[in-house]
Amino acid sequence: MSEFSLIEDIRALFESIPKNNFEGIGDDCAVLPIGNNEALLFTSDMLNEGIHFLPERVSAHDIGYKAVMVNISDIAAMGATPVATLLSIALPKRYGEEWAKGFIEGYRKASAEFGVTLVGGDTTASASDIIISVTAIGRAPMQNIKRRNGAKVGDTILVGGVLGGSAAGLRDILRGECDTANALTHRLPQAQVREGELLGSESKVHAMMDISDGIASDLRHILKASGVGAIVDLERMPTCSTIEDALCGGEEYKLLLTVASDAEKEIIERCYTATGTLLCAIGTITEGNDIEWRRNGERIDVEYRGYEHF
Amino acid sequence: MSEFSLIEDIRALFESIPKNNFEGIGDDCAVLPIGNNEALLFTSDMLNEGIHFLPERVSAHDIGYKAVMVNISDIAAMGATPVATLLSIALPKRYGEEWAKGFIEGYRKASAEFGVTLVGGDTTASASDIIISVTAIGRAPMQNIKRRNGAKVGDTILVGGVLGGSAAGLRDILRGECDTANALTHRLPQAQVREGELLGSESKVHAMMDISDGIASDLRHILKASGVGAIVDLERMPTCSTIEDALCGGEEYKLLLTVASDAEKEIIERCYTATGTLLCAIGTITEGNDIEWRRNGERIDVEYRGYEHF
Repeated sequence: MSEFSLIEDIRALFESIPKNNFEGIGDDCAVLPIGNNEALLFTSDMLNEGIHFLPERVSAHDIGYKAVMVNISDIAAMGATPVATLLSIALPKRYGEEWAKGFIEGYRKASAEFGVTLVGGDTTASASDIIISVTAIGRAPMQNIKRRNGAKVGDTILVGGVLGGSAAGLRDILRGECDTANALTHRLPQAQVREGELLGSESKVHAMMDISDGIASDLRHILKASGVGAIVDLERMPTCSTIEDALCGGEEYKLLLTVASDAEKEIIERCYTATGTLLCAIGTITEGNDIEWRRNGERIDVEYRGYEHF
Repeated sequence: MSEFSLIEDIRALFESIPKNNFEGIGDDCAVLPIGNNEALLFTSDMLNEGIHFLPERVSAHDIGYKAVMVNISDIAAMGATPVATLLSIALPKRYGEEWAKGFIEGYRKASAEFGVTLVGGDTTASASDIIISVTAIGRAPMQNIKRRNGAKVGDTILVGGVLGGSAAGLRDILRGECDTANALTHRLPQAQVREGELLGSESKVHAMMDISDGIASDLRHILKASGVGAIVDLERMPTCSTIEDALCGGEEYKLLLTVASDAEKEIIERCYTATGTLLCAIGTITEGNDIEWRRNGERIDVEYRGYEHF
């Protein structure tokens, strides 16, 4: 059973329950319009010892920092502003007060960077592993909210910077080299909050999400939701590692978006001058329903897939 | 380190971050006013294998059902209506598709009972245990929201029914007797949603919460937040088990509230006729700062404490 088939099962089972004004599952966040042309956005992500992090390799501080960033990245990915989190943590007895304090300091540091308050949660014992579950709440004008289903044929596909560092950094960490530049990007991902807010306010940004399972997987979510295909030009892919890491590596937490091609240059410039982040064009939205990989204009016959959770 | 000292540490560390209109940690839920005299409420609770449940004794269905109920109980406890949840679940490989399906069916059943939609979450692998983290979202008119800090000297203390069954039921389950009446109340707690909504609309209900760690612990939260004391008359305590189970047993998920004494009778009647639940008077709010336990009018020298998580 893959993560996505479980989510599909859940969605079908809940079809008959009233939506209470929420827009359904399928984007990075659930959206609740609250009147005055505003909406709240909600997302939850779990980080599990032995699956998402290794506490013998990564400090409690860095784990706390990352727990915030991966969640507010989902808020940013829809063009909204993160405002609050709820934190639930299950802590086994072998991790004491010192670990908890380090974790909370990292959690606080990431929260303070973007003025995100902590409004609740739960602290419990755990029989085995550290498990961290965060819910992030965001806020946005309704018209700023970007979804996966808005991509249009002819759009340019942009990514929020250099890819592949997180996957390469994870390999470094597993080898015991925890202080390489790539390991740094894996340990302390930077949610693109300012970028997301700015791109949310641009009407010519048509679809947006963040890259959490690898672009080969995540771009397909946009294609499926929008009923379109894509050409991706591999020679344009910005990477600090291999092309496989750039396409299939998870936990990037960089924005992936499609923009009207006539606005591509000005949006790149506005984002760069306002945030310092250089969006990189990597391809084009087409008719069709899958990704065509090209190198220097030639179609190449490869199959890249992203990370699967089960 | 107790659960409460960790939460105190966290609260202090986040003091300097702007609150973004949220009311702070301390009640069953965080409260966000959204205009038009309305507020949204948020709460998160975790259920962990080996700590909160034993999958070899309790079915996946019942665990899913309980995961919803314990969270929406916190919403009901503030006088609000639960509208949505986010579900994150970490599932080890030894639990397959069948377990997940049973869990989701129970989760759906409890959600459908109160028209609560599922709007998001996360499904991940787990190295060891099943961990379930739920965030519940509620909605209420601002003036309906009940807090822990509203108790007034002279108020009558009420509880939402018979106590002690959950603690006794847990002992039954640990002995392998999973189908006793008490085991049923432990496996399938019933959040007092209709009762909470009704009591929220009563201006003479001054303070309210739900009983999750035992009344001996939870009543003290109301006393501390309100700056008052209490007399509890043990002979009036409604219980289907021992007085210790009624006072110290966790996971009751029944309402605990204080009401103006001149409105006690009519509030009991209105709740009973509207919901079938008979609120029971167990004591009185006093000056002071702790609980005085009495039996038949005589002060007795005992010390009851609730459940501590660490």
